[in-house]
Amino acid sequence: MRDRARILLSCPDRPGVVAAVSQFLYGLNANIVQMDQYSTDPDGGRLFMRVEFDLPGLAGREAELQDGFSRVAESLDMDWEVRYARHRKRVAVFVSKMEHCLLELLWQWEAGDLQGDPVVVVSNHPDLSEIAETFGLPFYHIPVTKETKAEAERRQLEILKEYRVDLVVLARYMQILSPQFVREYPNRIINIHHSFLPAFVGANPYERAYERGVKLIGATAHYVTDDLDEGPIIEQDVQRVNHRDSVEDLKRIGRHIERVVLARAVAWHLEDRILTYKNKTVVFV
Amino acid sequence: MRDRARILLSCPDRPGVVAAVSQFLYGLNANIVQMDQYSTDPDGGRLFMRVEFDLPGLAGREAELQDGFSRVAESLDMDWEVRYARHRKRVAVFVSKMEHCLLELLWQWEAGDLQGDPVVVVSNHPDLSEIAETFGLPFYHIPVTKETKAEAERRQLEILKEYRVDLVVLARYMQILSPQFVREYPNRIINIHHSFLPAFVGANPYERAYERGVKLIGATAHYVTDDLDEGPIIEQDVQRVNHRDSVEDLKRIGRHIERVVLARAVAWHLEDRILTYKNKTVVFV
Amino acid sequence: MRDRARILLSCPDRPGVVAAVSQFLYGLNANIVQMDQYSTDPDGGRLFMRVEFDLPGLAGREAELQDGFSRVAESLDMDWEVRYARHRKRVAVFVSKMEHCLLELLWQWEAGDLQGDPVVVVSNHPDLSEIAETFGLPFYHIPVTKETKAEAERRQLEILKEYRVDLVVLARYMQILSPQFVREYPNRIINIHHSFLPAFVGANPYERAYERGVKLIGATAHYVTDDLDEGPIIEQDVQRVNHRDSVEDLKRIGRHIERVVLARAVAWHLEDRILTYKNKTVVFV
Amino acid sequence: MRDRARILLSCPDRPGVVAAVSQFLYGLNANIVQMDQYSTDPDGGRLFMRVEFDLPGLAGREAELQDGFSRVAESLDMDWEVRYARHRKRVAVFVSKMEHCLLELLWQWEAGDLQGDPVVVVSNHPDLSEIAETFGLPFYHIPVTKETKAEAERRQLEILKEYRVDLVVLARYMQILSPQFVREYPNRIINIHHSFLPAFVGANPYERAYERGVKLIGATAHYVTDDLDEGPIIEQDVQRVNHRDSVEDLKRIGRHIERVVLARAVAWHLEDRILTYKNKTVVFV
Repeated sequence: MRDRARILLSCPDRPGVVAAVSQFLYGLNANIVQMDQYSTDPDGGRLFMRVEFDLPGLAGREAELQDGFSRVAESLDMDWEVRYARHRKRVAVFVSKMEHCLLELLWQWEAGDLQGDPVVVVSNHPDLSEIAETFGLPFYHIPVTKETKAEAERRQLEILKEYRVDLVVLARYMQILSPQFVREYPNRIINIHHSFLPAFVGANPYERAYERGVKLIGATAHYVTDDLDEGPIIEQDVQRVNHRDSVEDLKRIGRHIERVVLARAVAWHLEDRILTYKNKTVVFV
Repeated sequence: MRDRARILLSCPDRPGVVAAVSQFLYGLNANIVQMDQYSTDPDGGRLFMRVEFDLPGLAGREAELQDGFSRVAESLDMDWEVRYARHRKRVAVFVSKMEHCLLELLWQWEAGDLQGDPVVVVSNHPDLSEIAETFGLPFYHIPVTKETKAEAERRQLEILKEYRVDLVVLARYMQILSPQFVREYPNRIINIHHSFLPAFVGANPYERAYERGVKLIGATAHYVTDDLDEGPIIEQDVQRVNHRDSVEDLKRIGRHIERVVLARAVAWHLEDRILTYKNKTVVFV
Repeated sequence: MRDRARILLSCPDRPGVVAAVSQFLYGLNANIVQMDQYSTDPDGGRLFMRVEFDLPGLAGREAELQDGFSRVAESLDMDWEVRYARHRKRVAVFVSKMEHCLLELLWQWEAGDLQGDPVVVVSNHPDLSEIAETFGLPFYHIPVTKETKAEAERRQLEILKEYRVDLVVLARYMQILSPQFVREYPNRIINIHHSFLPAFVGANPYERAYERGVKLIGATAHYVTDDLDEGPIIEQDVQRVNHRDSVEDLKRIGRHIERVVLARAVAWHLEDRILTYKNKTVVFV
Repeated sequence: MRDRARILLSCPDRPGVVAAVSQFLYGLNANIVQMDQYSTDPDGGRLFMRVEFDLPGLAGREAELQDGFSRVAESLDMDWEVRYARHRKRVAVFVSKMEHCLLELLWQWEAGDLQGDPVVVVSNHPDLSEIAETFGLPFYHIPVTKETKAEAERRQLEILKEYRVDLVVLARYMQILSPQFVREYPNRIINIHHSFLPAFVGANPYERAYERGVKLIGATAHYVTDDLDEGPIIEQDVQRVNHRDSVEDLKRIGRHIERVVLARAVAWHLEDRILTYKNKTVVFV
């Protein structure tokens, strides 16, 4: 992956965008591995594009690439970013007491399935410190109460800076982050909500799913915004349940959905597959 | 199916219920084909049971069966009902302009997959009369406006009586029934809602699913109660969508989910597989 | 769709292919709606591409488009084809006695979901003539026996010529086509096999699935080649079954999978989304 | 679970079986929690039944229960067994080098989701010893070559006896067990095969799935018999793949299916939900 990079962009849709981008890359002798586009409307809409390519000797040519592309981008009025596969993203995992989502991420990491690296675990409870330790990760226990919340978030942000964190994953972290915190990591905080959003926004979704008698339960991974459970949805999945399933059964079944859905969303983020637009995601998979 | 019957019951859970029911049936020389139970709590909860059996010479022994079982039921404080497979349920299908749910039901009926018979189609629009005709069914066009709604419902109820209808299926019938109407057919009106309830209750669920950017869309079949989209859920299913899917795509994909989910719910009702309890369903499949 | 076309191509993968194609289209002032590529190996593999675009005034510019592109294609050693959305493909549906696959196709066609048109129904049995008639389609009853097979195929090919058929769909047509027949329509005959291939190749897959006690049954849509059930797989799906399901139940459940899987494959073919390679398909959806 | 037991039985189907069993349990003042039956044919077939019940003071009444039921069973010609929930089954996990199936089982065990206990891990490679250690389980490294296979199996059987093992789980153990070994644990060895059986029986199923170009890959949990990959299927599941997925991708995706399918099968076995018949399973879930 040393020579691999990805450009993510969006711009007004018009003829010539694909030509301009691919011509530019050809001029550098880059080989396009995959190119995806999505247009909200070929006639006057907005175009989203992800292009993944190999550029021989990339390490020494970053400036050339960025400078060159900035000229293409300017002429076509693009929002854009270049991401380098060898700059692996650094991930902080926030947890409370439940381990399943953390374990799934760490396991997939160990199996080599994630193109990024967990570098620190933060929790408002001490319970999962041993798991972090097993995987050789530092663990910070930062209790959060109504009174200490501001101070706790200040400390958390310090840790994120210290560990140069690119992505925060809320792996069943049962606290709501303040708008100030969220603003520091726009589209870089992923939460797993234990319901099929927008059903059962807020607390106790499994209890409420049980009460309502639904026949499928689900989980939703989304970017965190100021509005609780209202951020751009990245991934969702469901599983069948029936009248025999108690609230405890729903929670047990739900754990399996949660960990899979969260891990998929995190993997896509780490592979630079997600763009956001109007509180929705474009996921190129 | 001439000798087949089903008993549906619920009662306080206590030792001996299964023994009493099965002993009674054995005394009649009935052969149990399938027996299902569900207890909300083996210790002091409520027991739900469905027992399907073959009783030789059933046609001439209905009174014997009902009288005998009423004694068992009384001693155990049961709510109960006997249903005879050879009394096929008579179904009215209410539609508006969309055909897919009606067509699916009529096909499955023709294919012999439904243990009941559509006997009449009612619509507030004339569009689907030809389909009804193709399948040899009477079609009643009863327009509904705010002003004529009471009169229209009176006419609809007349038709239901005239055709001795056991089950009303709202197959994308875009009108809300009055509480008076619903009261006439408790747990005997099945609606298909074009979302994964409780997400997107009310109007335009596909438009709202598109706006929210969900990654799965769904449909829900439920019994109709006075509260819109709040009745006991019988069946739900979903299908994966992505950012490329327009509202029109969601509607097209949704049509496939809707027809399948509705047909499953109707089939289960016709086979006497559904009991209701606390605004939820127990479905023995 | 008057101005819409698609180019399907494959060529040795090397830098510059995307640039050449997109530059060419930009030169014509075409707007790319969607472009997909897949490379078997970015380093020395084979590249497959589908590009869908709108070219204003396309009807009068076909020659310009084809001639121009042939020069691009030659320089990059491409296999290629231009397909025009307004040249809707003409479909022959071959059936025997079972109606579900035929009905699903005709229904989706009526609903406007297919970018092509059934133009003729051919069967070795007379049973489904009425359905063809309902949808206004000519129906040819051509019985097939061991003795008459060659003559029957000759007659079928005549009909395909007469109706200028682009795609043959075997919608549970229970006969095996001869290699001579298949050769006339390479990658243009789609069959639905009623199992999850390569499980249960050949006859009676539901009976054998029942015997084996599988927990999921499936269906497979594939292009027909000389080797029975061995052609390139286009689409597959499955549904859960259990020990209670008899062979008859498997067939009933299977009908739903078959019709959905076949309809998806046909829709993709009609939208020019499928390329084949080494007895496999690349499906750009 | 101290007072909970389950009776698993099969017998010729005839009127009165359910009555006899439930009457017997009622006579002991047991409360039936769940009762499931399945008849291959209500008219002259074989009946399978699972009844789960709570019997107050069960610990001191096992003999009473067994003796009493043996009389019921004899009169109705039953094969039967009583299983006690408080006698948790002891599980040996056989592995090679891959960890995912082992880890899933151990996690679910730690989470309290399994009604049984892993007691020993056996492997032909040393790689996973650390995982066993982390969970406090003894680990035996027993290399297997063609020459040492008989001796290795002798040693394995010794270990199974020593740890009083009830169930052997082959969690991607890449060796074939001899008929002699299998005979010692009939219907008590569960294997996970990394394909959707009967597709891709034998070695390298992912490579062969890739070659064939299937659109779904799967995994199958089954009881081990003398015929490779031919034992009774307990559970299967699949996941969608496409042309972009390399053999490595299939293996990665497959790992998730394998672990989930195997864990489900093991959980059902531990809850006494599985009966076997004619090389098939009846699974009461």
